[in-house]
Amino acid sequence: MSKASSSATAEEKEEPIIKVYGWAARDSSGILSPFHFSRRINGDNDITIKIIYCGICHTDLALLKDESGITNYPIVPGHEIVGEVTKVGSSVKKFKIGDKAGVGCMVGSCGSCNNCKQDLENYCPKMIWTYIGYNHQDGLKTFGITIYSPMMHFGLNNPDQHLGVVGLGGLGHVAVKFAKALGMKVTVISSSPNKHKEALERLGADHFLVTSHEDQKQLLQAAMGTMDGILDTVSAPHPLLPLVNLLKTDGKLILLGAPSQPPELPHIPLMIGRKIVGGSAIGGMKETQEMMNFAAKHQITADVEVIPMDYVNTAMERLAKGDVKYSLFCTNSSSVN
Amino acid sequence: MSKASSSATAEEKEEPIIKVYGWAARDSSGILSPFHFSRRINGDNDITIKIIYCGICHTDLALLKDESGITNYPIVPGHEIVGEVTKVGSSVKKFKIGDKAGVGCMVGSCGSCNNCKQDLENYCPKMIWTYIGYNHQDGLKTFGITIYSPMMHFGLNNPDQHLGVVGLGGLGHVAVKFAKALGMKVTVISSSPNKHKEALERLGADHFLVTSHEDQKQLLQAAMGTMDGILDTVSAPHPLLPLVNLLKTDGKLILLGAPSQPPELPHIPLMIGRKIVGGSAIGGMKETQEMMNFAAKHQITADVEVIPMDYVNTAMERLAKGDVKYSLFCTNSSSVN
Repeated sequence: MSKASSSATAEEKEEPIIKVYGWAARDSSGILSPFHFSRRINGDNDITIKIIYCGICHTDLALLKDESGITNYPIVPGHEIVGEVTKVGSSVKKFKIGDKAGVGCMVGSCGSCNNCKQDLENYCPKMIWTYIGYNHQDGLKTFGITIYSPMMHFGLNNPDQHLGVVGLGGLGHVAVKFAKALGMKVTVISSSPNKHKEALERLGADHFLVTSHEDQKQLLQAAMGTMDGILDTVSAPHPLLPLVNLLKTDGKLILLGAPSQPPELPHIPLMIGRKIVGGSAIGGMKETQEMMNFAAKHQITADVEVIPMDYVNTAMERLAKGDVKYSLFCTNSSSVN
Repeated sequence: MSKASSSATAEEKEEPIIKVYGWAARDSSGILSPFHFSRRINGDNDITIKIIYCGICHTDLALLKDESGITNYPIVPGHEIVGEVTKVGSSVKKFKIGDKAGVGCMVGSCGSCNNCKQDLENYCPKMIWTYIGYNHQDGLKTFGITIYSPMMHFGLNNPDQHLGVVGLGGLGHVAVKFAKALGMKVTVISSSPNKHKEALERLGADHFLVTSHEDQKQLLQAAMGTMDGILDTVSAPHPLLPLVNLLKTDGKLILLGAPSQPPELPHIPLMIGRKIVGGSAIGGMKETQEMMNFAAKHQITADVEVIPMDYVNTAMERLAKGDVKYSLFCTNSSSVN
């Protein structure tokens, strides 16, 4: 809270605010319901948007139910936001009223550290997450930038390369699309045999490996040592050894999902193949714009199921049960509109 | 054994052999004693050497005592061999009689796979280790190439970088020497406070961090996020999280020791700093020659304790107790010479 000087009037003591509206959870039941609250008035460098769509994912679910013990209720979740600009500050140059605008996991950073100076504000130690209590220690899912950034940074973007994609959810299906747009050979690695057709016929992957089936062991064996890189998008606990074994010498396993427990590191197989295991989380603003341009050029979109806002609690139950294909996006309309 | 055809004479049935002499262990007591055995006659592409020195390390110790259950007795250990050329085959161009020659962990590879074609024969799937039962799954220690190769490959060789070196044994002390020769800032990370003076005053490291002492926590805290890379040479089990925390964004932790159990991978810290954990094992012949040239230019040698051959069993006991500074090298002379 701001401290007023003794000469200040009562009105001067209070920061200007606006009344806004969202859906909040009040307790660890995680049930969302309409919620009126206040925000500071936007300044000269800010834009104001009306939110039209917002994605929901496992990270939101975990925070709503306070699975990590860090949630402050009430909580208004959402970090995959699409809206329309309704107001621009006097110093804003890149947006005008009526433009579409998106908001991801972060809404601010220090702007002066080494990471910020290199357009890596997503690794700024003072980065501000989009909603209070946002969990640094959970998956940052469904964004194209979460896929695009490590592909570029780790050099997994050449047409002569073979890329493995573990998991075919919100992140995984975008990874297949990007990799195919780049001309790469792509193998989807999944624990769900029923995603075979989807991976090959609709998304255009070249191969499909099931990790959980005995009769697939021969295929897994044949694929050993064939991949330049693997993007691992799975947040459920799973062993890394079979993935490391799929890599060539100098291969790279990049972790993008975030299981709740640290996995075992197969250190000997890393050593005898000079392989690496790396991590990556979202991306900077500059790279996000590059990703958007790339996606537009190649007409790559994320596949989503759009749901009315008042269906959100049912959608959350479906999400918890894994009954969702790719990603869920809420609209700001209700189902009776 | 070779199979003779029915028309062959008795003499033709046998491959030509020579009688040689070494020290072997006969059982899992690991006790070494003189041993006479046979080897094939060397061919046109071979050189023959008289072994003058041979290093002994924990890998030898583990194999002598069959700790991994893969040793075939009798076993003549040794994979850090220095000798003098006594004979050269007719096709040999790079050696002449009287030259010094060294033998490391490997004595052969397929020569035709992708790894071999790129001078990475140390990652050839058909690589032949120097002695029978040589353990792929244990530390490959004390060789300068085990340090030099990952420094070059992972780009940890620039004067503006800060390198951490974990452990100050056979590998670690060479790492400090190489890094200082390259003009890097070097911090030694050790569990032994008594190595402080040695690290700074004799080896020229810039800083020393003790991981095990409560009063060092503040120093560790201050060093967080400051290192471009860390070479981890320790074979005893230890957590990776404190090391990953010492790395900057995009920092690299390279594992060169090989604890018997897989460590936990601190996957979230990797993700939120785009860090990697990699492994590396020895190096190819071409790079080994580069390393030798670099070491000669900068007058870098490994610090060793030279012992007479008949002291080897006592030396092995000292090794098991950790009572060895850097590396032990046997000579082929006995203590009574």
